[in-house]
Amino acid sequence: MELVTKKKLMLYSGDAHPELSQEIAAALGVELGETNLRQFANGEMHCRYGESVRGADVFIIQTHGGLPVNDALMQQLIMIDAAKRASAKRITAVCPYYGYSRQDRKAEGREPITAKLVADMLTVAGADRVVSVDLHTGQIQGFFDRPVDHLTALPILLEACQRAGHPDDLVIVSPDAGGMKAAKRLANHLGADLAFVNKVRPKGVANVVEASNVIGNVADKTCILLDDMIDTAGTIVAAAQLLKDEGATEVWAMATHAVLSDPATERLKNSVIEKVVVTNTLPLPTEKQLDKIEVLSIAPLVADAITAVFEDESVSEIFGGENQK
Amino acid sequence: MELVTKKKLMLYSGDAHPELSQEIAAALGVELGETNLRQFANGEMHCRYGESVRGADVFIIQTHGGLPVNDALMQQLIMIDAAKRASAKRITAVCPYYGYSRQDRKAEGREPITAKLVADMLTVAGADRVVSVDLHTGQIQGFFDRPVDHLTALPILLEACQRAGHPDDLVIVSPDAGGMKAAKRLANHLGADLAFVNKVRPKGVANVVEASNVIGNVADKTCILLDDMIDTAGTIVAAAQLLKDEGATEVWAMATHAVLSDPATERLKNSVIEKVVVTNTLPLPTEKQLDKIEVLSIAPLVADAITAVFEDESVSEIFGGENQK
Amino acid sequence: MELVTKKKLMLYSGDAHPELSQEIAAALGVELGETNLRQFANGEMHCRYGESVRGADVFIIQTHGGLPVNDALMQQLIMIDAAKRASAKRITAVCPYYGYSRQDRKAEGREPITAKLVADMLTVAGADRVVSVDLHTGQIQGFFDRPVDHLTALPILLEACQRAGHPDDLVIVSPDAGGMKAAKRLANHLGADLAFVNKVRPKGVANVVEASNVIGNVADKTCILLDDMIDTAGTIVAAAQLLKDEGATEVWAMATHAVLSDPATERLKNSVIEKVVVTNTLPLPTEKQLDKIEVLSIAPLVADAITAVFEDESVSEIFGGENQK
Amino acid sequence: MELVTKKKLMLYSGDAHPELSQEIAAALGVELGETNLRQFANGEMHCRYGESVRGADVFIIQTHGGLPVNDALMQQLIMIDAAKRASAKRITAVCPYYGYSRQDRKAEGREPITAKLVADMLTVAGADRVVSVDLHTGQIQGFFDRPVDHLTALPILLEACQRAGHPDDLVIVSPDAGGMKAAKRLANHLGADLAFVNKVRPKGVANVVEASNVIGNVADKTCILLDDMIDTAGTIVAAAQLLKDEGATEVWAMATHAVLSDPATERLKNSVIEKVVVTNTLPLPTEKQLDKIEVLSIAPLVADAITAVFEDESVSEIFGGENQK
Amino acid sequence: MELVTKKKLMLYSGDAHPELSQEIAAALGVELGETNLRQFANGEMHCRYGESVRGADVFIIQTHGGLPVNDALMQQLIMIDAAKRASAKRITAVCPYYGYSRQDRKAEGREPITAKLVADMLTVAGADRVVSVDLHTGQIQGFFDRPVDHLTALPILLEACQRAGHPDDLVIVSPDAGGMKAAKRLANHLGADLAFVNKVRPKGVANVVEASNVIGNVADKTCILLDDMIDTAGTIVAAAQLLKDEGATEVWAMATHAVLSDPATERLKNSVIEKVVVTNTLPLPTEKQLDKIEVLSIAPLVADAITAVFEDESVSEIFGGENQK
Amino acid sequence: MELVTKKKLMLYSGDAHPELSQEIAAALGVELGETNLRQFANGEMHCRYGESVRGADVFIIQTHGGLPVNDALMQQLIMIDAAKRASAKRITAVCPYYGYSRQDRKAEGREPITAKLVADMLTVAGADRVVSVDLHTGQIQGFFDRPVDHLTALPILLEACQRAGHPDDLVIVSPDAGGMKAAKRLANHLGADLAFVNKVRPKGVANVVEASNVIGNVADKTCILLDDMIDTAGTIVAAAQLLKDEGATEVWAMATHAVLSDPATERLKNSVIEKVVVTNTLPLPTEKQLDKIEVLSIAPLVADAITAVFEDESVSEIFGGENQK
Repeated sequence: MELVTKKKLMLYSGDAHPELSQEIAAALGVELGETNLRQFANGEMHCRYGESVRGADVFIIQTHGGLPVNDALMQQLIMIDAAKRASAKRITAVCPYYGYSRQDRKAEGREPITAKLVADMLTVAGADRVVSVDLHTGQIQGFFDRPVDHLTALPILLEACQRAGHPDDLVIVSPDAGGMKAAKRLANHLGADLAFVNKVRPKGVANVVEASNVIGNVADKTCILLDDMIDTAGTIVAAAQLLKDEGATEVWAMATHAVLSDPATERLKNSVIEKVVVTNTLPLPTEKQLDKIEVLSIAPLVADAITAVFEDESVSEIFGGENQK
Repeated sequence: MELVTKKKLMLYSGDAHPELSQEIAAALGVELGETNLRQFANGEMHCRYGESVRGADVFIIQTHGGLPVNDALMQQLIMIDAAKRASAKRITAVCPYYGYSRQDRKAEGREPITAKLVADMLTVAGADRVVSVDLHTGQIQGFFDRPVDHLTALPILLEACQRAGHPDDLVIVSPDAGGMKAAKRLANHLGADLAFVNKVRPKGVANVVEASNVIGNVADKTCILLDDMIDTAGTIVAAAQLLKDEGATEVWAMATHAVLSDPATERLKNSVIEKVVVTNTLPLPTEKQLDKIEVLSIAPLVADAITAVFEDESVSEIFGGENQK
Repeated sequence: MELVTKKKLMLYSGDAHPELSQEIAAALGVELGETNLRQFANGEMHCRYGESVRGADVFIIQTHGGLPVNDALMQQLIMIDAAKRASAKRITAVCPYYGYSRQDRKAEGREPITAKLVADMLTVAGADRVVSVDLHTGQIQGFFDRPVDHLTALPILLEACQRAGHPDDLVIVSPDAGGMKAAKRLANHLGADLAFVNKVRPKGVANVVEASNVIGNVADKTCILLDDMIDTAGTIVAAAQLLKDEGATEVWAMATHAVLSDPATERLKNSVIEKVVVTNTLPLPTEKQLDKIEVLSIAPLVADAITAVFEDESVSEIFGGENQK
Repeated sequence: MELVTKKKLMLYSGDAHPELSQEIAAALGVELGETNLRQFANGEMHCRYGESVRGADVFIIQTHGGLPVNDALMQQLIMIDAAKRASAKRITAVCPYYGYSRQDRKAEGREPITAKLVADMLTVAGADRVVSVDLHTGQIQGFFDRPVDHLTALPILLEACQRAGHPDDLVIVSPDAGGMKAAKRLANHLGADLAFVNKVRPKGVANVVEASNVIGNVADKTCILLDDMIDTAGTIVAAAQLLKDEGATEVWAMATHAVLSDPATERLKNSVIEKVVVTNTLPLPTEKQLDKIEVLSIAPLVADAITAVFEDESVSEIFGGENQK
Repeated sequence: MELVTKKKLMLYSGDAHPELSQEIAAALGVELGETNLRQFANGEMHCRYGESVRGADVFIIQTHGGLPVNDALMQQLIMIDAAKRASAKRITAVCPYYGYSRQDRKAEGREPITAKLVADMLTVAGADRVVSVDLHTGQIQGFFDRPVDHLTALPILLEACQRAGHPDDLVIVSPDAGGMKAAKRLANHLGADLAFVNKVRPKGVANVVEASNVIGNVADKTCILLDDMIDTAGTIVAAAQLLKDEGATEVWAMATHAVLSDPATERLKNSVIEKVVVTNTLPLPTEKQLDKIEVLSIAPLVADAITAVFEDESVSEIFGGENQK
Repeated sequence: MELVTKKKLMLYSGDAHPELSQEIAAALGVELGETNLRQFANGEMHCRYGESVRGADVFIIQTHGGLPVNDALMQQLIMIDAAKRASAKRITAVCPYYGYSRQDRKAEGREPITAKLVADMLTVAGADRVVSVDLHTGQIQGFFDRPVDHLTALPILLEACQRAGHPDDLVIVSPDAGGMKAAKRLANHLGADLAFVNKVRPKGVANVVEASNVIGNVADKTCILLDDMIDTAGTIVAAAQLLKDEGATEVWAMATHAVLSDPATERLKNSVIEKVVVTNTLPLPTEKQLDKIEVLSIAPLVADAITAVFEDESVSEIFGGENQK
C-alpha cells in the first residue's frame, strides 16, 4: 500500500480572543475548527474537537490574556493535549501575547523563571512549534528546544510613526533602560533621535515606579514612547509627563501588547499622552476603548506566518528580515 | 572537606486553602515558610521564598480548589519552579485534591487526558514526588514516573459511618457504576450491605444526570451514598431521592472532596439527605456551610504522610495498609 | 533535489498469534513482511527484516499471549528497535491484548505499576503510537504521551448478545464491582437490565475468589456475564453458578480477551455456562477449544483501524463513536 | 525539623539464581529482603516488598539466565519499578550476566541492538546504576548515561590458570578474532604466549561454526581457550580439537559465563577439553554438572563491589585496577 | 547495614585558567584533585581522575577562555562525563566566564542560539548545577532546568569605582543600548549619573562598530564605561574617545570579563582610557598585561559560592542580595 | 487548505574538509548551501544559513578533523542547532570521521566515554540521524537512539588490495588484537591469509607502543597491515618493521581514516612500508602528501548513502550487505 502524502491546515481558537482568531482565519481563507470548549462548574476546562485532526497540521491560537491568564494558558495546553492524542501530525501553538514573559530571569534569589515554565508546559503538552509576537526578550526563544517563529509588530508600528511626524522632529524614547534596544531599532529605521527615561523601581514592590530624569534631548520634539507592552501604564504615563516637562511638544505611546490592567485606562485617559498606538494581540474590551487609543491589527502578520509555516516558506522574508529581535 | 549530611523539612503553602496548611503545620509542629506570593494586576502570579531552601526537603501544599482551579495549579507550579531553582534537595507537591482528576482517560475521541497533563506539568516544573488524597482513580499514580503517596480518607469516613448506625442497618450505596469499588471497600470494612444506582448520563452534556433505578436492597435501611467527590451534587441528590422512594429510612452522603460547585449547596440543602460528611481537602466557604454538612479534618493524615516521607518511614503502615486503592 | 513524499504501509507480525496477523493482512489486502525471527539456544530473541523499511509506516502486530507473555513483549520490543534503527518513518505497536494491563495501579504499597512499565518500554523501544483493544482500564491511555487508538470489541459482542435472546429477557451482569461500567454500557446499548456479583477477593492470594451475592434481579432471565478478559475463569464460573442459584434461566459469558490460563478450560467445561463468547485477540490452542466457546474475529476491526491510521482518517467514526471507553 | 541523614543497604534477589544471591548476602553479612515474587497463571509476574524500602539504597540482583532470559529480565524490571514507586533512594541493578550482550551492534542491516534496548529498559524502569561482570564488550557501558560498575572475573580465572601449569608451558588461545583483547590481557598477566583460532562463521545461520586454522604456536603446550561465555560450546569444542590436532598437550576452557545452552553439556563431555573453568554468574543445574567443570564463585567480588557502592569507596581499587576492560 | 551519610567536597580544574583554580582552592582551604588531563596528538582530550570521586560533591572549574573556547568547553564536558561515570554524587560546573553567552537569541533568522546549546551540552554531560559570573544576560539562567548560581562581580567593581572619584563627579556610561541595565544598577549603587553611547553596528559584519553620539551629560565628569566583557575593545575605545570629545575629564573602562581578543591590547594601550578594571574570570597572559589594566580577583567570590553550595547555605546572602541580575 | 507534501534535499558543509563536501555535492548533482560560517576573534563560531531550510531534509557534512577536532565538532553542532531552529524537517549529521571514537569504553576507572558524549551532543543539538564511515567499533551505533547509517570503505580498499598482489601471496595483518575482526573480514573477502602483531601498550602513556611478535605466517608474503585509522603511525610502522624482520617481501598499510598526527608523516616516509592506502574521510594537507600515500575518494559512497536516506531506499543494498561491521 502506497499513498502520496498530503497535508491539511486546521486552525483552532481558544476563548481568549476570538475576534483575532476570526481575523486570522479570514486572512487565511479558512474556517476555524470546532473545539466544543466548555468550563465545568468547578472551573475545570475541557475541549473535544468536532472533526478529525488525524494527520493534520494544527494551529492552536490563544493569546495569554482576555481570559484570566492562567485560564488562557491552561485552555491552550488542554487543546494541545487533545490534538496530540487525536494524532495531529504537527501542532503549532500560536501565542500572540506570551504570558509571564516578563518573568524571564531570576531578578532576585529564590524566584521562579515562569517564562521558562510556560515554555516547558507548552512543550510537554505537545506543541511542536510556537509562533509569538514581540516577546519581552528575544532570549525566550532559547527556552525552547523547538523552532519559534518570533514575529515583530515593528513594520506595523513604523507606519504609525510616520503618521506622527517628520523624522527630524521625532525622538523615540524608551521608558526604561531595558527597552533601549527596541527603541534604537525603531529610531534607526526612521532616522529619528533616541532618548530614554532613567527611572528607579524600588525593589520588591509591584507596579510602583519612580520616574526620574530624561537622558537625551527632547525639547521641541514629538516624542514616541515605545515599549513592548503597556500594563498598568504607570511607567509610561509618568514618562510622558516628564517628557512634557522637558519641553516635548507632543507625546505618543506605542506598544505591541495592550495589557491595560487597571488602572491603565484611567491613567492613559488623564495623561498628557495624545495618542496610544497598540496592536490587537490582546482584546480591548469596550470599557477600555478610549478615543486616543488606536488599535492596529496583527492578524495579517500572524496569518502570513502561519501560511509560511504550513507551506515551508521563509518567515523572515515576509518581514524583510525584521521578524527577529 | 567533609560534612555529615543533614536534612531539613520546609513547609510552604499556596493561597488555595491556607487553613488546611496551617492545620498540617500545627500537626507537624513546624512553621509555614514565607512565600511572598502575589498576583500582578494582569493576573500573573509570582513567589519569592523568604528564606533559603538550599538543600532542604521542601513540601509545597496546594489543593486544586479554593482559588480558581487553574490559578491554584499554576501557583503551585510556580512555587515548585522557584524551589527547584533555589536548589531545594527534594520537592514534594502535596495536592490534597488533585485537579482535573476526572479527565483521566479519553471517554470519547479527540478529548484530552488532562489528569495526565497535570502530572506532566508537576513533573516538568520539578516535583520529585506527589502526595494526594483519594484520587478519582488509582491509575493516576501511573501517570507519574515518580513516587506518589496516595492517601485515603477511608479510616476517617469509617468512623463517621459507625456514628450513622449499626452495620446491619446500613447499606453503602454507590451513586454510579464507576464508584462501586470504593463502596465495596467501605462496605467490607463495616460488614454492611452494598447497592448502587444505575443512572444514565447523556453524552456530551455536562453536569446533567438522569438517575434511573437502584440495584440492591435498600428498603428500611440507612443508606450511605459514597463518592470520591461531590461537585454540583446533582447525581447524589437524585440518588438520595431514589433511595428514599425505594424505602430507605435515612440517607447520608459521604465524600472525601467537597467541591460543591453551584448549585450544590442549594441542592443539598433542599434534598432528602440528612447528613453530608466530607473532609477539608477543599475549603468550605462560609456561604456553603450548611448545618447538615460535617467537615472532618484530613490534616493529621497528611501530616503523618509528610513525616513518613521526611523520615523515610513507611506510609502504608500509618493507614494499616489502607492508603492505596 | 525535490521529491513528492509518498508513504508506504508495511505490516509485520511477531510469533505470538500468526493466525490473527494473517487475518489482518488479508483484511488489509497486504502481505506480511519478512521478519526472520529466531530464538537462540539460550532463549534470546532476534529479528532481521527481510526488506528495507526505510521511510515506511510500519505496523508491528503482537498480542501479549500465545507465547509466554514476557517473550511476546520482548519480541515486539526487539522488532520495534530494529525498525527504528532501520529508519522506519513511523512505528505503530499493535497489541490486540495488552499484557500486564491489570497491574495498572498500586493496589497495595510497594507494588509495581507494570502496565505503565510496559508503556514506557514500548515508548523507549521506539513505538510512535499504539493500537490496542479493550484495555483493562481506559486510564492506560494516559500512561502514554503518544496517541493510542483504543478499540473496543463492543459492536462485535453486541451482535452475539442479540443472538442470546430478546433484550427484555436479558440481564447484563458484571462479575465484579470494577466491571460495572462496561456492563452498563452494553446494557444501555441493548436496552437490557443490569446486575452485578458482589464478591470478595482475599488480599494477597492470587487467582482465588470468593463470590458472595448477586445485586440486581436475575430470576427467570438470561444472564450475560461480561468481563474484559477470562483468565482462570474462577470468578466467572462461580458467578454463573450464583446466577443459576438465583433463578437465572441461562447464563452466557462474554469477554474480549480469552486468556484462559489453566484450569480455565476445565472450569468452563464443567460449569453451568451455556455459551462463552470471546474474540481472537489471543490464540485459542486446540486443546482449549470447547464446543461452548465461540470465537469472533477482531481482525476486521484492527484492519480498519490500521487503514485509518495509515490514511489519516478518523478511527472513532469506524466504530460509531464506540471505540473509546 | 532537622535530621541527620542515614543510609540503609537493602538487598533483594529475583528468582533467576537464588543461590548466588544468598552467597552475596552472606558475604555482605545481610539478609535478603522479602520480595513476595509470584507468577500468575498467564505468566505475568508480580512482586511486593515485604518491608519498607523508603529512602533505602536498594540492590536488586538478577542474572539474566536460570529463568528464561526474558522472564529474568522482566522480573528485574518489575522489581525496580516497585522499588522506585516505593521511594527507594537509589536503585542498583546487579546483573552478574547481562542478557542480550552479544547483540551490541548491527552486524547486518535491519537488526536490533538489543543490548542497548536492555540498557534503556533498565533505565526507564528506574535503575540509577548497574553492576555487571565481564560484559561481552566494554562499550556496553556507554549504552548507559549512568554509572556502570563493570567487574571482571579475571583475577579469579588467573588463579585457575596458575593451577593449569607453568606460564612457559601455557598458551592463552582466543577461539575467535573478537576475543583477542581479553586473551591478550590474560596472557600478559601470566607472561604466557598467545594464539587464536581463525574460524569462519557463515552469515545468517545461528550457532553453526566452521573452525579453520590456528594462528600462533601451540605444539607441546598447555592451551587455555578463553572466552567471555560458553553458550552452545560449538566454537570452543571445535577449537579444542584443532589445538590438539596442532599438537597441544592439554586443552582447558575458561569463561566467566556458563550459559551452556543445549547441546553444550554433551559437547563438552565428549570433547578433548580436560577442564572447564567457569564462574557462577549463571546457575549450573545438576544435569549440567560434569566432573570436568569447575565453578568458581563470583559472590565475593560482587559483594565487595556492593559494599564499595554503598560506602562510596573505589571499586577499581578492589580489583587492583583490573575491574575494567 | 546502616551508615550516617557524609559528603565530601572535591575540586577539579581544567587547563583553561589554572591560576584562578589555585586561588579558589586556596580560598577554600582544599587541594585541587588530580585530573591527569592530556591531549592526544590529534587534538582529542582525555582525563582520568587520580582518586575516587564516588559519592563526592564534585566541582569542576573551567572558564571558557585561556584555551581556545571550544577546547575549554569540551575539556570541561569530558571531565563532567568522567565524574558522572565514576559515580560522583553531584557535579557542579563552575564556569567563571560562560562561553558563547552573547549568542543567546536569534538576532536574525537561521541563526543558532549557541548559549542554549552550551547549556544543553553541560546538562547532557551530567552537570547537576552551574555556577557562573555575570552572564551576558540573566535569561541564560532559564536555559537550564537545573539550579544556576549566578554571581556578580558588582561588589568588587563598586570598590574600584569608589577609587575612581567622588560620585558627584562620576558618570556611569554604557557603551551600547543593551548594557543600560547593568550601568543603571551600578549608578544607583554609587549615586552617580548615567549616560550611554548610541552606536550603530552594521548587520552581518563581525567586530566592526560605528559609535555615534553620547546620550546624557558627560562634560567635566569622570566617565566609567561599564560592560560585561571587553572583547576586541573596538566599541569601548571608540566610546571613550567620544566621551573625551564631549568633554569628559577622564575615562575608565570596567568589565567583569577580560576577553581581550586581538587587537584589544593594542587598542586599549593607544586609547584615551586611563584605567581598565577587570576581574580574573579569564587569564591575562603576560603579553596582554598593560600598566593601565588592573585585575581584581574573583576567587573569593567563587570560593564563597562553592562553600555555600556545599554546605547548603544561601548564596544570595553572601552578596547582600546582589548576586542576581 | 490541503497541499501535496514535497521534500527537498539541502546539503551544507562545515569548514573541516570542504574538498570532500564539494566532491559529495558533485556526486549528488546539487550545490552546497550557503552557511556564512565565521569565527569571532575570541574563537567562538557562528553560522547563518543563506537560504530558507524550512521543511527541508538537511544534511550537514563535517568530518572531525582538518580543523582542530573540538572546533570541527562544535561547528557542526552549531550548524545543527541553527537548522533545527530554522525549522528543518530532518537533520542528518554526516561525520565521515567520527571524533573521539577510540574513547568508546572505560579502559580504566574514572575515565570518560567521550564517544558517547559526542553522540549525546549530536542528539541534543538536534541531529535526527547520523551517517558515518568505519566507526572505531560498531557498538558506537548503540550510543544513539536514532538511526545510524554506518558505511564501510571496505569495497574501496578491496580493490586496492587486488592491486597489491595475488591473494595467495597476501596476508592481511592486524597491527593489534582489537583490529582482528576487520582484518578477518577483509581476508575472507580476498581469500587471503591472516596474521596479527601482538604488541603491548604500557598503561597510562599516550601514543607509545611496544610491538612484540607476529602471530601467524608472513615469511615470503606481501603483507597488508589493516587498521581503521592511522594516527601517529607508531604502531603500524613498528609492525611493518617486524613483518619485514619476519621475512615479509613487501608491506602495505591500509586504513580508512588518515588522521596522520605528527610525527606520522615522518615515520611513514622513513618506514619500510611501500604503500599507504587511505581514503579522504580526512583532509590530507600538502605537507603530509607523500608519494607512497594513495588517497581513495569516499565521496561516491557517502553520496550514495545520502541519496538513499533522502529517497528512503536501502543503504545496505548499495554496499552489497557490506555496510555494517
